[in-house]
Amino acid sequence: MMKILIINPNTSEEMTRGIDTMAKTYARPDTEIETVCSREGPRSLETVYENELAGHFVLERVIEGNEKKVDAIVIACYADPSLRSAKEISEVPVFGIAESSMHLACILGHKFSIVTVIDRVRPNLELMIRQLGLESRCASIRATPLSVLDLQKDPSLTRKTLTEEARAAVRDDGAEVICLGCTGMAGHDKTMEKELGVPVLDGVVCAVKMAEGVFDYKLKHSKVNAFAKPAPKEWVGLGRFAVVD
Amino acid sequence: MMKILIINPNTSEEMTRGIDTMAKTYARPDTEIETVCSREGPRSLETVYENELAGHFVLERVIEGNEKKVDAIVIACYADPSLRSAKEISEVPVFGIAESSMHLACILGHKFSIVTVIDRVRPNLELMIRQLGLESRCASIRATPLSVLDLQKDPSLTRKTLTEEARAAVRDDGAEVICLGCTGMAGHDKTMEKELGVPVLDGVVCAVKMAEGVFDYKLKHSKVNAFAKPAPKEWVGLGRFAVVD
Amino acid sequence: MMKILIINPNTSEEMTRGIDTMAKTYARPDTEIETVCSREGPRSLETVYENELAGHFVLERVIEGNEKKVDAIVIACYADPSLRSAKEISEVPVFGIAESSMHLACILGHKFSIVTVIDRVRPNLELMIRQLGLESRCASIRATPLSVLDLQKDPSLTRKTLTEEARAAVRDDGAEVICLGCTGMAGHDKTMEKELGVPVLDGVVCAVKMAEGVFDYKLKHSKVNAFAKPAPKEWVGLGRFAVVD
Amino acid sequence: MMKILIINPNTSEEMTRGIDTMAKTYARPDTEIETVCSREGPRSLETVYENELAGHFVLERVIEGNEKKVDAIVIACYADPSLRSAKEISEVPVFGIAESSMHLACILGHKFSIVTVIDRVRPNLELMIRQLGLESRCASIRATPLSVLDLQKDPSLTRKTLTEEARAAVRDDGAEVICLGCTGMAGHDKTMEKELGVPVLDGVVCAVKMAEGVFDYKLKHSKVNAFAKPAPKEWVGLGRFAVVD
Amino acid sequence: MMKILIINPNTSEEMTRGIDTMAKTYARPDTEIETVCSREGPRSLETVYENELAGHFVLERVIEGNEKKVDAIVIACYADPSLRSAKEISEVPVFGIAESSMHLACILGHKFSIVTVIDRVRPNLELMIRQLGLESRCASIRATPLSVLDLQKDPSLTRKTLTEEARAAVRDDGAEVICLGCTGMAGHDKTMEKELGVPVLDGVVCAVKMAEGVFDYKLKHSKVNAFAKPAPKEWVGLGRFAVVD
Amino acid sequence: MMKILIINPNTSEEMTRGIDTMAKTYARPDTEIETVCSREGPRSLETVYENELAGHFVLERVIEGNEKKVDAIVIACYADPSLRSAKEISEVPVFGIAESSMHLACILGHKFSIVTVIDRVRPNLELMIRQLGLESRCASIRATPLSVLDLQKDPSLTRKTLTEEARAAVRDDGAEVICLGCTGMAGHDKTMEKELGVPVLDGVVCAVKMAEGVFDYKLKHSKVNAFAKPAPKEWVGLGRFAVVD
Repeated sequence: MMKILIINPNTSEEMTRGIDTMAKTYARPDTEIETVCSREGPRSLETVYENELAGHFVLERVIEGNEKKVDAIVIACYADPSLRSAKEISEVPVFGIAESSMHLACILGHKFSIVTVIDRVRPNLELMIRQLGLESRCASIRATPLSVLDLQKDPSLTRKTLTEEARAAVRDDGAEVICLGCTGMAGHDKTMEKELGVPVLDGVVCAVKMAEGVFDYKLKHSKVNAFAKPAPKEWVGLGRFAVVD
Repeated sequence: MMKILIINPNTSEEMTRGIDTMAKTYARPDTEIETVCSREGPRSLETVYENELAGHFVLERVIEGNEKKVDAIVIACYADPSLRSAKEISEVPVFGIAESSMHLACILGHKFSIVTVIDRVRPNLELMIRQLGLESRCASIRATPLSVLDLQKDPSLTRKTLTEEARAAVRDDGAEVICLGCTGMAGHDKTMEKELGVPVLDGVVCAVKMAEGVFDYKLKHSKVNAFAKPAPKEWVGLGRFAVVD
Repeated sequence: MMKILIINPNTSEEMTRGIDTMAKTYARPDTEIETVCSREGPRSLETVYENELAGHFVLERVIEGNEKKVDAIVIACYADPSLRSAKEISEVPVFGIAESSMHLACILGHKFSIVTVIDRVRPNLELMIRQLGLESRCASIRATPLSVLDLQKDPSLTRKTLTEEARAAVRDDGAEVICLGCTGMAGHDKTMEKELGVPVLDGVVCAVKMAEGVFDYKLKHSKVNAFAKPAPKEWVGLGRFAVVD
Repeated sequence: MMKILIINPNTSEEMTRGIDTMAKTYARPDTEIETVCSREGPRSLETVYENELAGHFVLERVIEGNEKKVDAIVIACYADPSLRSAKEISEVPVFGIAESSMHLACILGHKFSIVTVIDRVRPNLELMIRQLGLESRCASIRATPLSVLDLQKDPSLTRKTLTEEARAAVRDDGAEVICLGCTGMAGHDKTMEKELGVPVLDGVVCAVKMAEGVFDYKLKHSKVNAFAKPAPKEWVGLGRFAVVD
Repeated sequence: MMKILIINPNTSEEMTRGIDTMAKTYARPDTEIETVCSREGPRSLETVYENELAGHFVLERVIEGNEKKVDAIVIACYADPSLRSAKEISEVPVFGIAESSMHLACILGHKFSIVTVIDRVRPNLELMIRQLGLESRCASIRATPLSVLDLQKDPSLTRKTLTEEARAAVRDDGAEVICLGCTGMAGHDKTMEKELGVPVLDGVVCAVKMAEGVFDYKLKHSKVNAFAKPAPKEWVGLGRFAVVD
Repeated sequence: MMKILIINPNTSEEMTRGIDTMAKTYARPDTEIETVCSREGPRSLETVYENELAGHFVLERVIEGNEKKVDAIVIACYADPSLRSAKEISEVPVFGIAESSMHLACILGHKFSIVTVIDRVRPNLELMIRQLGLESRCASIRATPLSVLDLQKDPSLTRKTLTEEARAAVRDDGAEVICLGCTGMAGHDKTMEKELGVPVLDGVVCAVKMAEGVFDYKLKHSKVNAFAKPAPKEWVGLGRFAVVD
C-alpha cells in the first residue's frame, strides 16, 4: 500500500481532475492517489516564464508531500517543471511525466514521437530531450494549432487533431510509439491507440507506474550529487522555503 | 493477476535460481513468475558468439511463452541477447534487463555506471548504450577481474569487489546510480546500496517492474515497424522457427 | 551611450559589489552600469532549488529593467538562472554570463575549461553545456573544495586554489581558455591570466561586452519562437507577474 | 595468391550466384573466390529474427573456413549478420559488406546514402550506422517497395526503382555516393553509376577489395579485446560450436 | 582607440568596399578600420581549392598586420579561410566572420540558419559547423541559386531571394536568427531584419564587435596549444613565410 | 596495371624515401609507385600554417599527376593536408593516409588509437576525426615528446617510445588497432605489431591498398557536389592554378 501525491503545476481544476482520473484508472488497487494543483499561477503552462513562476507553488506542494510522508510525488506537466529542484529538496522520489513516458517509450519501440500543443513549446521540448540524452530515440515533435486551454474546448476536434498528427509521425517520421505531450490530452490515449495501432502513452500513467515499481523495489532517487539536499546557508526572506541550520 | 516468463539465456541452473529469487522477492503478490533457462548453450554468456548461439534457445522459449499466453517475457542476461528478434516474433511484450535498468537508472539519478564482469564485455556494453542512445547518461562501465562463473564462487569476495568498483564509479566518474551488469550478481543489490548510499539496480527486478507497469496500463510493445512480425516466406529447415504461410 | 542593468540573482551584497566593479572596469566609458541583487533568496546559489526560488526576484528585476527602458540586461550568476524565462518576458536583450563567456572562449581557443566551486554544481553545468551544444568545446569542468561563500573568505587561498585547478586543466585536459565559474571569483581573472599564460574569462565582463556589441549593431534577441512573449491568459494571483489581457 | 570464402547467410541459390559473379568480376586474377550459402534458414533476410536464426549456419561456414585455412571471409548480406561473433571465433579476418562499403563510401564522397529494400529494414540499418559511428556521413536511407525476393523478379523494374531512389538521394539529401543495400541488387551498380554520375557501391566487391588489401599488408583483424576468441567453458550441447578445453 | 585590419580573402574590389562599409557603419567611433584584399587569387571563393590558394595571400596580410601592430584582424569570408593558420602565426587576435556570427547567433536565439550562395558550399559549411560543435544550434543551411558574383548583379533580386530563403528557414526549420553566409550580401541585413522580424547577422559586423570587446577586456587569443606559434625549423623557399631560427 | 603518384607534402627527402619504401613493399607487383615531395615548404608539417603553405606545392603535384594521367594520388602526411582541395581539382581519385588508415582501422577492431608526435598536433587530429565522424571509434590520441624531425634521429628510441604509448593505448584506452600518426614512423609498423599483438597501420600502405581496390572496381571519387571541379571564374595571378574559361 503506497501513497502518491500528484502535483498539477498549473491552476486549472479541470486539468487537475483529468490527471486524477487518469492516475486512478491505471493505479493499482492498493495505491492511494491524491492530486493537487498549484495555489497560484497561470491556468496553463506553455513558456519557461510560466513554468518558473509556477515553480514556487510546485515546490510548496513537494515540501508538503514530504511532510505528509507520501511515498512518491509526480509532477504532472509535460515540461517537467521544477523536476530537478524537487528532486533536490525531496527525500521522497519525484517523477516527471515527460521523463517517465519517454523512457518507457524507448522500451516499447525503436523511436517515439511527441504530439503536443502549439509550436511555441517545441524549443523547450528539444532541450528536455537533449538533457535526457534521447535525441536519437525521438522521431519527431509534432505540434498542433491547439493551445493547452484549447484542448478541452472540443474534445472530438482535439482527438481528431492529435490522431492526425500522430498518424503522420508514424507514417513519415518513423515513430513507433506516441507520447501525449500535455496533461490536457487526458483520456485520448486508448482511443488513439486503437485507431493508430501503436502504443499511445499518457505521461501521468507512466509516472504512476514508475513510482509503483520504484516503491516495490524499495528504491529512492539518488541523493548523492545532482539531487543532494541543498546545504543550509543564510537566506533573506522566502520563509519556509529557506534551508537554514 | 499476470504471468511473466523469465528466460535465462545461459544454461546455469544456479543463475536461473538466483534470477527467480530476485524476481519473486520484488514481484507483486499477484504476479506469477516462471523462470526457465536455455536448453542448450554455454554455462555463461560473455561474447557475442555465445549470445548468438544461445539465441535459438532463447527464441524457442519466447515462442513457447507466446503459445502459453504469458503476459510478459523477460530476457535475463545483461547483454540483452536476442531482445530485438524476440520483440519481432513475440506478440507478448518482451523486456531486456539491461534496457530496463538503464532507463530506470536515468529516472533515479543524473548518471549511472554499470559494474560488470571481465573487461571483455565492455565493447558490447558500449555498443548497447549507443543503441539505446544513453551515452550522455552513462558515467562509466567498470569491469572487474571476475568472470560470470567466478561471481558465485566466493560471494563475499564478489560483493567486496563489486562494491569497490561501484564506490570508485561514484567517487571518480560521477555515477549516482549503479547498475549490476550480470545476473550472477543477484542478491548483492541491497547490501551494496546500504554501503554506498546510492540506488543499486538488479536488472531482473527492473524488468519485472516495467512488465507489471506495462501490463497494468494495458500496453504492448509496438508492432508497426522495427518489431513487426516477420513476413511469411520460404524457409529451408529450421522447423518450428520458420515463418511460412 | 547605453545603459546595462546587471542582476545578481543571489542576495550577497559583497558579490554584488564585486560584479559591479568588474563590469565598470571593462565597460566602455559611455556605458552606464547599474548592478542590483535579488530582494529575497539565498546568499549564494549552488542548487537548482535555490536558482528557482531566486527566479521570482530575478524576473522582478527583469520587469523593472524593461519598465526603466534599459538597453540590456545581464544575469550575473554562472548557472544562468532564469535566463530563458527572462528572454521570454523581456523586450530588452538579456545576456547570461555563462553563455557569453563560453561562446567567447570558443573564439579565443580550441577548448575551454570551467573552474568552479564545489562538485555539487557539476551536473547542472554539464546540462547547461549540453543545452548550449558545446560539449565538444569544453575540455573539462574543474571543481574545487570551495563553496561560493568560501570564495571571499581568504582571497589569496582562493586565487591559489583556482590557479592550481586551471593549471591542471591546461596541462592535463587540453584547455586553452579558462572560464571562471562563479561571480564570487571576481577580480582574479588578470592575475591568473598572467600566471597561466592563457586567457581567463570573467563572465560578467564577457556579457557586458556582448551587450555593448549587440547594442552597437542595433540588434535585439529574437522574439519569434523560443523567446516570444508569453500570451495573455487567465492567472491566479502572482500579481504583476501575471500576463493577462 | 589468396583465397576468400564468401558466405551468403540466406539460402537463395540465385542470390549466391549473383554474389559470386560480382566478387569474381572485380577480384584480382590471383584471388580465388568460393561462395557458399547457409545450409538452413530463410530464403532472404529482412528481420533480426531471420538474421539470428541464420546465424548458426553462418558461424558453421566461418568455422569451416578457418578449418580450410582460407585467407579471408566475407559475410555477404547488408545487415552484416553474425559479423561480430564471426570476428570473435575466427582467426581469419572477416569482412562485412555493409561496413566495408560504408567506410569506402566515406573515402569517395562527403556523404553516402543507402538504397535498400522495404521500409522494415530501416531501424536495423540506423542501428548499424550508429554502431559504426557514421551518423554524420550518412545522408539518408532510402527504402523502396521491393522486398529482397522481389528484386530479382523484374530486373529492369528493379533497376528503375533503385535508380529513382538514388537520384532523389543525390538531389534532395546531399548524397554523393550510393551504397546498394542488398546483395539481391547485384549487377546494377555500374549501370546506375552511369545514369547517376556518382559512385555506386556493391558491398560484396567492397569487402573483397578490403580483404585483398588487408591480405597484401599482412594484417589480420584485432584479437585483443572485442574480438578475442571466446574462452573455453562448460557448454550444454551445441556440438562443434562449443568452445571447451 | 583600436585598429582593426580586415582582410577580404578574394580579389574583388567591390566586395572589399562592401565589407569596409559594413565594418565602418557599426564600428565604434574610436575604432579605426582598414580593409584590404588578397593581392592574387580568384574573384570569389566558393571551393576549398580557391580558399587554399587564396591562403598565402591572406597569411601575407596577417603577417603585415602583425608588423603594423594592429589590434585585431578579421578574415572576411564566410568560409573562415586560413583562420586557424592565421591564429597560429599571429600574435594579434584573429576573428572569423562565420565563427563570430554563429556564436553571436546562439546568444540571440534558440537556433540559427545560414542563408548562403550556391549549394556547392554546403558541405564545407557543414564541416565548419561540426568543427565549431554547433550542430545542435544550426536549424538549416539554406542555399540559393546565386553564386557569390551573382549577388551584386541585381541587388533587389538578391534581397528578394535571400529574404525568401530566410523566411522559409524561420517558418519551416525553426530558425530564430539568420546568418548571412557571404560578404557579398553586405547591406541587406537591416532590410531583411525588418521584413522578417528576426535578427539578421552580417558576419563582418559581428567579428568587428567581438574584436572590440576582446580589445576592451585586454584579451588575446590563446597561444598555448592549438594556436601556438609554429616552431622554427628548416624551410625550403617560401621567403618571408618561413619560420626559421 | 596501375600507376599511383604519392605526394609527400613536406620537403624532407629522407621522409620521401621512407614513404616510397613503405608503398613499394606492400603495393601489388603490377602497381607502379612514384613518390615526390613538395618543391618548397618546411621540412616537416606540424601546424595548420605549415600545412597551408605547403598546400600550393601539393596542389601543383596533384595537377601534374592529372596531366600525367596517373590512376590515383596519395597525399602522404597524417594531417591529410589539401586533401579536400585536391579532390576538387583532381579527376583522378585522391587518398589521404589518415582517412584511409582510420577507416581501415574501424574494420579491423572495435576502436583505434593514433600514436603521434608532439602534443601540438592533437587539436588538428581531433578536428579531423570530427570531420570524419569517427569520434566514437577513436579510443585516444597518444602524443609523444618527439617532433616529426626527431623521429629519424634515433630509430630505436623512436620505436621504443611509440611502442610504449601504443601499449598504454591498448591497456588503458581500449585501443584494438594502432594508427601510426606520421610518415616519419615508416618501417616501425610490423615490429610494433609483433610486440603489441594488435594491428599497427602505416597510413601510406593503407592509402595504397585503398587506391588499388578503387582502381580494380573501376571507381573514381564522387565529383557531384563537395568535390565538383571549381567553376571557371576571373582570377588575379596564380598562373596555372587559376581555373578560367
